[in-house]
Amino acid sequence: MSGPVAQSCCTFLVPWITKNRIMVCLLLVNLVLIFLYFDVRQSSSLSSPNPGGKPEEINTDSSSHAPDSIINADFGDPVIFEPYWLEYGIDMAIPAWHSISYLSSHRQISPLIEDCLVDEIRSVHRLVGNAVTQNRHIIIGAGSSQLLQAAFYALSVNDQSPPLKVVSACPFYSAYPLMTDFVQSKLYEWAGDAMDFESTSTRDGYIEIVNYPNNPDGTIRHAVVNGSSGGLIHDLAYYWPQYTPITSPADHDIMLFSLSKFSGHAGSRAGWAIVKDLKVAQLMSKHIMFNTIGLSRDAQARAAHIMRYVVHQYSQKGSAPYRLKTGPDNTTLLFHHAYDTLEHRWKELRDLVVSGARFTLQDYPLAFCTFFGETTTTHPAFAWLKCEQDRDCEELLNSVNIRSRGAHLFGILDPQYTRISMILSLKEFTVLLSRLALLNNSSQTNCESMELTTKR
Amino acid sequence: MSGPVAQSCCTFLVPWITKNRIMVCLLLVNLVLIFLYFDVRQSSSLSSPNPGGKPEEINTDSSSHAPDSIINADFGDPVIFEPYWLEYGIDMAIPAWHSISYLSSHRQISPLIEDCLVDEIRSVHRLVGNAVTQNRHIIIGAGSSQLLQAAFYALSVNDQSPPLKVVSACPFYSAYPLMTDFVQSKLYEWAGDAMDFESTSTRDGYIEIVNYPNNPDGTIRHAVVNGSSGGLIHDLAYYWPQYTPITSPADHDIMLFSLSKFSGHAGSRAGWAIVKDLKVAQLMSKHIMFNTIGLSRDAQARAAHIMRYVVHQYSQKGSAPYRLKTGPDNTTLLFHHAYDTLEHRWKELRDLVVSGARFTLQDYPLAFCTFFGETTTTHPAFAWLKCEQDRDCEELLNSVNIRSRGAHLFGILDPQYTRISMILSLKEFTVLLSRLALLNNSSQTNCESMELTTKR
Repeated sequence: MSGPVAQSCCTFLVPWITKNRIMVCLLLVNLVLIFLYFDVRQSSSLSSPNPGGKPEEINTDSSSHAPDSIINADFGDPVIFEPYWLEYGIDMAIPAWHSISYLSSHRQISPLIEDCLVDEIRSVHRLVGNAVTQNRHIIIGAGSSQLLQAAFYALSVNDQSPPLKVVSACPFYSAYPLMTDFVQSKLYEWAGDAMDFESTSTRDGYIEIVNYPNNPDGTIRHAVVNGSSGGLIHDLAYYWPQYTPITSPADHDIMLFSLSKFSGHAGSRAGWAIVKDLKVAQLMSKHIMFNTIGLSRDAQARAAHIMRYVVHQYSQKGSAPYRLKTGPDNTTLLFHHAYDTLEHRWKELRDLVVSGARFTLQDYPLAFCTFFGETTTTHPAFAWLKCEQDRDCEELLNSVNIRSRGAHLFGILDPQYTRISMILSLKEFTVLLSRLALLNNSSQTNCESMELTTKR
Repeated sequence: MSGPVAQSCCTFLVPWITKNRIMVCLLLVNLVLIFLYFDVRQSSSLSSPNPGGKPEEINTDSSSHAPDSIINADFGDPVIFEPYWLEYGIDMAIPAWHSISYLSSHRQISPLIEDCLVDEIRSVHRLVGNAVTQNRHIIIGAGSSQLLQAAFYALSVNDQSPPLKVVSACPFYSAYPLMTDFVQSKLYEWAGDAMDFESTSTRDGYIEIVNYPNNPDGTIRHAVVNGSSGGLIHDLAYYWPQYTPITSPADHDIMLFSLSKFSGHAGSRAGWAIVKDLKVAQLMSKHIMFNTIGLSRDAQARAAHIMRYVVHQYSQKGSAPYRLKTGPDNTTLLFHHAYDTLEHRWKELRDLVVSGARFTLQDYPLAFCTFFGETTTTHPAFAWLKCEQDRDCEELLNSVNIRSRGAHLFGILDPQYTRISMILSLKEFTVLLSRLALLNNSSQTNCESMELTTKR
């Protein structure tokens, strides 16, 4: 398994080492790429809805959105990160021979895992202080989705009982039931709210998913099932300083993270699990091997490249804490940039909400963030909006063409709650706010007439 | 789902358009990358077993392999393609903002599928003439593995019967039973040899996997279960001109292909299904959405880049057929390069086998290959080796430290057969041949004494 073709993905990555020679080269590469880019625009015969390939220009002019245009705040697509990478990112070159082999690694639990990605993951967690990685196994998969299924498999495959119940406290992430049940495995099955499970039976084995800060409501959660026979999976996709104060390094049996909410590269599909038990890690690897024969090595190389860049940017500023307001050049730093953007969006949304009586939002406690060395609060990727006057909040937002995700999908019967994305594009967020403001400024009766107008 | 962030993966790819300006740019980019490469070698602090990042130099000196070194001919890692991409491939640049969104497409069945990759897939099949793609749906997944599971799901999820039986005629690809049963789905389950299934019951629904040229034995197969209620999945991973004559465009309900055996980029994990029925295609997409939220967009971009290069290389030579022996520059063409290499290896192996009485190999018929416009024969990626004098062929090869895959894993009880990879590196193939020659030249008794020697 360690033939001559096993390659390290790091070795061809452009390093951000502060050497003049390299900087000159990068400049040259970029100049050439810019030239090529414009040449391609002119000469390529490809038809594309966006011929430049680059994301569209950011346009905050909400008037360009007609009243019947749909704002999709349902889906958690982390497009908020796009301006950062457009402005500060560095492109990556992949050699023609890369990914020829299935195999990449010499050191890891699975030869399908790139050594250098594991090294970068450890570096990122060391930098941020949000998870213990020392003496832990790192498993790479296609986002949290595949890793969650791999963890279900690992925790249930040697269990002799009927399908292991998978639970999570309400409101739970709406994808958990779908990801648990779509293959209809005999090994495990979705069983709903962890609070209910606790009250009925703890004798049998079970799996509890703990998600913090929790999607959809942003709260910090702990396991609630009081049993000794359960397996715990901690989904920490949002435990990064832009979303919530990092209070201490998380240290749980199975912890899931993804590139998607770390840097916004959701399309790369890179995720990782930090696992204490070797046998669990091996079984997770086995699942991923049978399922997809590992995560694309191109995606692994990409994830390593992105992490390396982030760690390098911070390492140039010394060691943690990295204070929030120390200079104008902090906007070049990923977590600072994302924190500022989310803080600003949350301030705008809260200002809007308190200016009327129609909506309320979850309050979050202050806590000392070890990464920023300051007291901060939670700015989740989603707002868990409550409509105080309307029966169905999702329906109300639908009436002004805002798509949100209603409470029932998170296991909550009360339709007064709905989830809206805070990580959409600035253009869409601006329109979202303007439409919420319209609703907020209207009485319920007035609103109904407005709905009729916009529906025409 | 078609927000402003949805990007075409093609638009930033370096095109191989015959424009001088672009060629000059590519030259510049490559010069800069070569400079960077050497600079990184000298200055990078990364520790890597292979600091240059590039694959090791090809070494055909079999004496460098000690007798106790293991030759892994068990696994089908397509490293045979590496020299081609090292010599003729063109690197690819991925911009920092690429893959920020989950979403890529505007036109396809799923917004997780890159438009440009689907276009390139259609181009490749048009070039090769090995599959009908017109009025067919194209689904992208992580290699044949994920697509096979997606197809199982699509064919079984609306079936009210007990788990649908999945069968394939012996000898079947050894991974089929594992990929079918590892999640222990209530929807489908492995049921072994399709020939046996035919003889017991055809009333219930079933799924038959037809693999041609077949892994492990290289034969051209047809469905064997004579039922009307079955779903057929055609695994055509090896239906490319380097392995077998392309006699006509394949046209089946569900056809699976992968980058892995097309170009050797197994680590990219890009695969595609060509599907006739819209509903089946939608269900396959749904499975892939829940399983991994699509294939990495980086991998999709990479696959499109590779295919575009191959199609461009051939389009410069006119239209098909592309004769095998028309000039020395045919080695720059992927299928010609791979065909020549495989033909040469098969000649060497056959010469070895006929020089003794210990082994035999499958014979393959001649057929007219529409792509090459010539009569060719099958040169499979694996040799299905039969030991004529020894009870257990896998064991015999093990005795000289050749790892192969024994017949029992392919549903065959006769241990006289074993599968050896023909697509390993040249270095390993050379050692493989020399060890097989040693066995071939020995009588069974002599061999036993030789085994003792090499085992020391």
